[in-house]
Amino acid sequence: MDHDLAKKENRAVLLISCPERLGIISAVSNLLFGYKANIVQFDQHTTDPRDGMFFMRILFDLDSLEASYPQLEQDLSNMAQEYPMEWRLSKGSQTKRMAIFVSKMDHCLVELLWRWKSREILVDIPMVISNHPDVKDTVESYGIPFYHIPTNTQTKEEAEQAALEILRGKADFLVLARYMQILSPRFIAHYPNQIINIHHSFLPAFIGANPYKRAFMRGVKLIGATAHYVTNDLDEGPIIEQDVIRVNHRLNESDLKVAGRRVERNVLAQAISWHVEDKVIVYGNKTIVFA
Amino acid sequence: MDHDLAKKENRAVLLISCPERLGIISAVSNLLFGYKANIVQFDQHTTDPRDGMFFMRILFDLDSLEASYPQLEQDLSNMAQEYPMEWRLSKGSQTKRMAIFVSKMDHCLVELLWRWKSREILVDIPMVISNHPDVKDTVESYGIPFYHIPTNTQTKEEAEQAALEILRGKADFLVLARYMQILSPRFIAHYPNQIINIHHSFLPAFIGANPYKRAFMRGVKLIGATAHYVTNDLDEGPIIEQDVIRVNHRLNESDLKVAGRRVERNVLAQAISWHVEDKVIVYGNKTIVFA
Amino acid sequence: MDHDLAKKENRAVLLISCPERLGIISAVSNLLFGYKANIVQFDQHTTDPRDGMFFMRILFDLDSLEASYPQLEQDLSNMAQEYPMEWRLSKGSQTKRMAIFVSKMDHCLVELLWRWKSREILVDIPMVISNHPDVKDTVESYGIPFYHIPTNTQTKEEAEQAALEILRGKADFLVLARYMQILSPRFIAHYPNQIINIHHSFLPAFIGANPYKRAFMRGVKLIGATAHYVTNDLDEGPIIEQDVIRVNHRLNESDLKVAGRRVERNVLAQAISWHVEDKVIVYGNKTIVFA
Amino acid sequence: MDHDLAKKENRAVLLISCPERLGIISAVSNLLFGYKANIVQFDQHTTDPRDGMFFMRILFDLDSLEASYPQLEQDLSNMAQEYPMEWRLSKGSQTKRMAIFVSKMDHCLVELLWRWKSREILVDIPMVISNHPDVKDTVESYGIPFYHIPTNTQTKEEAEQAALEILRGKADFLVLARYMQILSPRFIAHYPNQIINIHHSFLPAFIGANPYKRAFMRGVKLIGATAHYVTNDLDEGPIIEQDVIRVNHRLNESDLKVAGRRVERNVLAQAISWHVEDKVIVYGNKTIVFA
Repeated sequence: MDHDLAKKENRAVLLISCPERLGIISAVSNLLFGYKANIVQFDQHTTDPRDGMFFMRILFDLDSLEASYPQLEQDLSNMAQEYPMEWRLSKGSQTKRMAIFVSKMDHCLVELLWRWKSREILVDIPMVISNHPDVKDTVESYGIPFYHIPTNTQTKEEAEQAALEILRGKADFLVLARYMQILSPRFIAHYPNQIINIHHSFLPAFIGANPYKRAFMRGVKLIGATAHYVTNDLDEGPIIEQDVIRVNHRLNESDLKVAGRRVERNVLAQAISWHVEDKVIVYGNKTIVFA
Repeated sequence: MDHDLAKKENRAVLLISCPERLGIISAVSNLLFGYKANIVQFDQHTTDPRDGMFFMRILFDLDSLEASYPQLEQDLSNMAQEYPMEWRLSKGSQTKRMAIFVSKMDHCLVELLWRWKSREILVDIPMVISNHPDVKDTVESYGIPFYHIPTNTQTKEEAEQAALEILRGKADFLVLARYMQILSPRFIAHYPNQIINIHHSFLPAFIGANPYKRAFMRGVKLIGATAHYVTNDLDEGPIIEQDVIRVNHRLNESDLKVAGRRVERNVLAQAISWHVEDKVIVYGNKTIVFA
Repeated sequence: MDHDLAKKENRAVLLISCPERLGIISAVSNLLFGYKANIVQFDQHTTDPRDGMFFMRILFDLDSLEASYPQLEQDLSNMAQEYPMEWRLSKGSQTKRMAIFVSKMDHCLVELLWRWKSREILVDIPMVISNHPDVKDTVESYGIPFYHIPTNTQTKEEAEQAALEILRGKADFLVLARYMQILSPRFIAHYPNQIINIHHSFLPAFIGANPYKRAFMRGVKLIGATAHYVTNDLDEGPIIEQDVIRVNHRLNESDLKVAGRRVERNVLAQAISWHVEDKVIVYGNKTIVFA
Repeated sequence: MDHDLAKKENRAVLLISCPERLGIISAVSNLLFGYKANIVQFDQHTTDPRDGMFFMRILFDLDSLEASYPQLEQDLSNMAQEYPMEWRLSKGSQTKRMAIFVSKMDHCLVELLWRWKSREILVDIPMVISNHPDVKDTVESYGIPFYHIPTNTQTKEEAEQAALEILRGKADFLVLARYMQILSPRFIAHYPNQIINIHHSFLPAFIGANPYKRAFMRGVKLIGATAHYVTNDLDEGPIIEQDVIRVNHRLNESDLKVAGRRVERNVLAQAISWHVEDKVIVYGNKTIVFA
């Protein structure tokens, strides 16, 4: 499920988004057939079969993948002229590089490190960046470089600049594993739809300060979490995954936070797995997830 | 679980809320022991064992229940002087009377009628009131009186007055099974913490018009529902129960509504079952549910 | 989700199962492109992209569907020669006819009748057959013919024969909504992979008599249900859907049965929805569900 | 929720099991009232209020706990004469010692170590014992002693004896975190209802070899896990907790195992949390869990 693409030689995934047009599936499958590609998974979605948007994900094996790759890219570029389509081709052999941003709370971080070590999430982790030094030892015990970049209102711009320098050429996507800092539009622009954030979610929403306190005061029966891509609208980017956990009146505010941590680490890890497998297509402010 | 009290002869439930005070459990259990009551379920909750609020539910059997009842009430009244406590005593033999308010959508109504008929919810249903005539036949096919009380901005006060007249002496609590009308504080005051409402819930919340459309535009992955007691703050009363259902990008706005209906009817029915069994205590704007 | 095909004019679904062969997707999509079909949903699964089994479901719109249908069938027959494939083509305009078998318990029956009436399940229900007369009134109040066919060990063969007579030409698939009778291989052979059954499921399994009693004695924490196609191996046919509900020590044996009923009616209804939309392909003793 | 008792000074929990008798709640609460104990949580269950079994858990604060403890024990012993009851008193100040047994798979082990380190499970871990050396480094990186005790059919008795020696006086309960070895009745007798095991669970059950392969062949839609106390009946002891995770046809056998690991580590950790808080009472072959 989560390991169909990553670390697989001779396997690639093709993602396509374009306005609906008759024959698009036919055209793309003919192209791949011309390469003698074995299709492993084929997923498609349309917002309207006549005049909507069309989305496709094709996972395929190709013995000659490395040799054929340049020509395949060329053919797709040509096709993109005819069908005005956006496309992305990823090779399983090219392991994605995930940089993690974290603050003091380590529950999401540790979940990711463990799934990485146990090969449940197949990525490289070139670094962990934090505005606090607290998780340094944990990170380094996994043999992963740790960078401490303090930040405050005054130094925010330099701190982001410093992070960008360290990241340059080393990370394909970023994960905010409870980073607790708002990134500037300037920073986000370097990683469009490539920054995944996790935040608590409640029914109803408790927007603003002290959400757990207010959830407790209100006596909610569910605590949730939402993983989403970061956009300039704080916590309003395209949702990748959500889940909830049941709670009751016996849980105090601190217990609710523990419950929140449990659902957060699972939701974030799941969202990352889908991202790594190129199963997520962003369209407008929502996602298509070919789970 | 949901049938411990209702329709059980010689069984009663005692609910108590009071400021914490040493010995309260001892005092109440001694009182019941004096009557030779067999305790069937004993639930307790405290917000703080030293100076918080204390809540208790005791379900008990008493062979001489009918004969002993007046004296038991007197003893509890006396005790309420000493411990400044609120208490409520309900007999299983006294079936609760549930009036249902509904608009055009019948999914919650039908679920309730079916659970009533199959004795999963042990109540009497003296009437169904609606501002539309649509569900008349359905209701009457179950042998339940149906009242059509149209309402609009101008006639709202009279309509509510008409409903109160019909209800007078006939209903113990009300269920808004997708009634879609905002009740006035004047009306609500007749049934404090005795009106149960169900409404859709989303992560994040989409407050205002067209929530399903906006949930669809946002690509939510969960659709939820919340059952709560009605207070003067619209949709902000004490939550009794919540649940969610998973959805994905394949569901259009109309499909999301179908998903919403499924979770709504289960959440509402569950909340009612707990209310009927006197398992819910309201404190401030939250509930303790001894599920 | 559940209404993509049924009751849609000019819409059809094509299901294909065949040994993997390079170019199968290309060939089928070219064929449909030749008809100017708009593809609405395209789902595929392979057990192994090199030498496994390949499964495909294509939901498509075709303005000239009625006129083109015979030729399309012919083309698919021809293609089935080249690729040794099994295929099935269903028109949305051709509403499936679902006959329901039931015994005394009506919880699944009522759920299905309600979903049918509220158009959540888009089928025709030509009849309900029961070995007991208990649900006659319920069924007939929906305007559906009810047949009472008593059965016992001696009369089983005649009873099945009588049912087959009544069903002849009137039902596309059968639902055993807690029918509690074992059908003979002879009967089942008339509806291969077209009989859906629901039964309770536990962790661990309690095979044999009194499963709820034994589940209660064992103190299980989950009660489940499984919907599956009926084969000659009792309760061992291909699984379509499963779900569970949480329970605890407070539930007695009778409460566990109520919990079981709740999960049964949801699981059965979901399985039927997928069947009606031709989203289920049986392969060996398992199913591929393009949910 | 999971931290009401452990590591709390002046807090204790009293567990009682006895045949039902009028006045038992009254007697026990009077006894505690005599000590001026503040009751924090009071849970009770009866199999039948007249002649069944009665179970009770009282969590209480007592300023003079240490000083009063011997007398309290004496009073309970006296009461146990009158009411033929089993009772257990545990102090929050007395941190439970949990020894972990593990084989090669480390998913449950790592979950437990992390919850221990992040103080989600409040225990001491005096040692990890394994029949393989694989997880030595992981365990020791947490500063926990690791013992490698190889075992095979011939050496099983000595291996168990060696483990008992190491454990002697150092562990209050044992967790089999995927230990994959069957313990002898002789060994189990040292830790009655104090050994927690986790194993996979399926609907239906696939008893015997290669359960995941058979679950895959059958196309199950749910993968579950069960945590239970170990008795002499292999995998048949009292169930503490169960849960499931949804799977579909896209998951191969190996993916199903990954899914199984996820549910196993959560179910095992939850069962341990309840055990640590003395929320589980075993009665016959089932548990009462005051969650």
